Amino acid sequence: MHRESMNMDMTRRTLLAGTAVAASASALGIGAATPARAQGAAAPQQAPGFYRHKVGDIIVTQINDGERTFPLPDSFVRNQKKGDVSKALEASFLPGDKMTIPFNPIVVGTGGQLVLIDTGNGPQPQANATVGLTARNLQAAGIDPKSINTVIISHFHGDHINGLRAADGSLAFPNAEIKVPAAEWAFWMSDENMNKVPEAAQGAFKNARRVFANLGDKVSRFDPNKEVAAGITAIPTLGHTPGHNSFVVASGGRKLMVSADVTNRPELFLRNPGWHVQFDMNAQQAEETRRKFYDMVVAERLPVAGFHFPFPSLGHVEKVNGGYLLVPVAWSPVI
Amino acid sequence: MHRESMNMDMTRRTLLAGTAVAASASALGIGAATPARAQGAAAPQQAPGFYRHKVGDIIVTQINDGERTFPLPDSFVRNQKKGDVSKALEASFLPGDKMTIPFNPIVVGTGGQLVLIDTGNGPQPQANATVGLTARNLQAAGIDPKSINTVIISHFHGDHINGLRAADGSLAFPNAEIKVPAAEWAFWMSDENMNKVPEAAQGAFKNARRVFANLGDKVSRFDPNKEVAAGITAIPTLGHTPGHNSFVVASGGRKLMVSADVTNRPELFLRNPGWHVQFDMNAQQAEETRRKFYDMVVAERLPVAGFHFPFPSLGHVEKVNGGYLLVPVAWSPVI
Repeated sequence: MHRESMNMDMTRRTLLAGTAVAASASALGIGAATPARAQGAAAPQQAPGFYRHKVGDIIVTQINDGERTFPLPDSFVRNQKKGDVSKALEASFLPGDKMTIPFNPIVVGTGGQLVLIDTGNGPQPQANATVGLTARNLQAAGIDPKSINTVIISHFHGDHINGLRAADGSLAFPNAEIKVPAAEWAFWMSDENMNKVPEAAQGAFKNARRVFANLGDKVSRFDPNKEVAAGITAIPTLGHTPGHNSFVVASGGRKLMVSADVTNRPELFLRNPGWHVQFDMNAQQAEETRRKFYDMVVAERLPVAGFHFPFPSLGHVEKVNGGYLLVPVAWSPVI
Repeated sequence: MHRESMNMDMTRRTLLAGTAVAASASALGIGAATPARAQGAAAPQQAPGFYRHKVGDIIVTQINDGERTFPLPDSFVRNQKKGDVSKALEASFLPGDKMTIPFNPIVVGTGGQLVLIDTGNGPQPQANATVGLTARNLQAAGIDPKSINTVIISHFHGDHINGLRAADGSLAFPNAEIKVPAAEWAFWMSDENMNKVPEAAQGAFKNARRVFANLGDKVSRFDPNKEVAAGITAIPTLGHTPGHNSFVVASGGRKLMVSADVTNRPELFLRNPGWHVQFDMNAQQAEETRRKFYDMVVAERLPVAGFHFPFPSLGHVEKVNGGYLLVPVAWSPVI
């Protein structure tokens, strides 16, 4: 009886959660014959975007924050013609006239703690937004935001830090210590650096100030090549931003490389490591980092999680024709 | 009020459904702090295995029936040495000493009807079985088995037909018409064919008799090259079995090829179309069918669903080095 009333209460709570409603109703098995379905209340939903796998004794959960689609910009790849970018997209069976960028934070269960690496785009004003889904997909995975002990940030671009804040500006992970790269903090929090760029380019500086405002000792800064949390070591992978970090998750002789933004979409930037995505702040340094990082991944045959790889954003990498081919992980129904 | 009591009733029903409990509890957001989680009632679960995508106006749902893992048999590939098969597995970042075979039926929503193509391994006696998950994943996708109007069968191997029956022997899809290839029915239901093979090899014949017993006019037989349901055309792809069929799902100028068992795992049998999996009954004919089928898929750049591809068992195919490379679909969080 207690259990049933608890479930009813949760159901009521879920009904208030907006977009989560139909998905939960589907999970409960509302079939075609029910009045709710007949009224269109449970139109077909996409599966939730989470996927669990093990690295030694550690359980890692890939979380999909969604994806953003926009017309292919003329200079999406700075050192390539738009037409050649379109051709590369079409060769990978993607539409040649637009760009879709997926976003995928991960949760690492290590040493009795839950560690979130990067946070996604955060809450969106539009009800049908296709990004900012991290909160919903954490819920689908049964992970309470209050249970996150640590948030580690790879770099300060908005798609990685904005999810630190809920829609009302409060902390989305209220019990978490937030760990950020010291070099990244130093760069973006410098008023001198902000004032050097035109006002139109100051948005990312201002956004970092908004997200990290008034956090006091909730935020700590880490240096690379040290453990940031049990089993998670930061490695400097500079170029995308001045303080960009990737991570090695290690347990029981196994390793997972968490690349963050060493590459954007694999169909373009793994296949062509010399292509410079417009988001890389120091394109030459980013390319050197990319080649070094993925040569190591190939040599050691390590699995790699890529923030901008299509969900579940996980695979191995082969060296092919001077570039790299992502071999997506074979989905397993058991963890 | 009606809605809440309906949801409570569904919750109660879900609680009776065994393995679905923890997953549903997670979907409802039971967090780490609840007593249920503290008691270990909601240990981390894998995501449900369903994925929706569109073919024109048709919504297709890939359903994972799970996967079966066993030590790599000496003659898993009839015309290759075991050591070479191990090497090919390892080159694809899979363990070289075992074989894992995934199973993936699909649901096609077409013309106001729900059509299930193949049914998976059916209910299993063990509570922790890694196959027979179709019922659970249909439920996760919000598809009531009673709402399935038609079941189409590609061929009569147990992993395709056993899911027609529930654990108690009743029909798993009680309102569905069952459509089977006429040539497949003729082959497996022939006592003459059954009596030709040694008793040890009669299992598949007997299993077909068990599954299709006493179904009367629930079962109808179809010939290839005709529409089996609105927008779904059968194409004969013989060799794996004497009456094996694949299907074209077509809508609004788009097509999806549903290959069934034209190949087993893509890492072995797409990369090496000349390799003969031990399950192919006429290996030479199966190879000819495979090359013809995938040359067409490559030429027309069609998406293909493969029953034994890793979930979501969907991708495009490139011709590479005389073989074929599966390019898995980029997962989309929106349908």
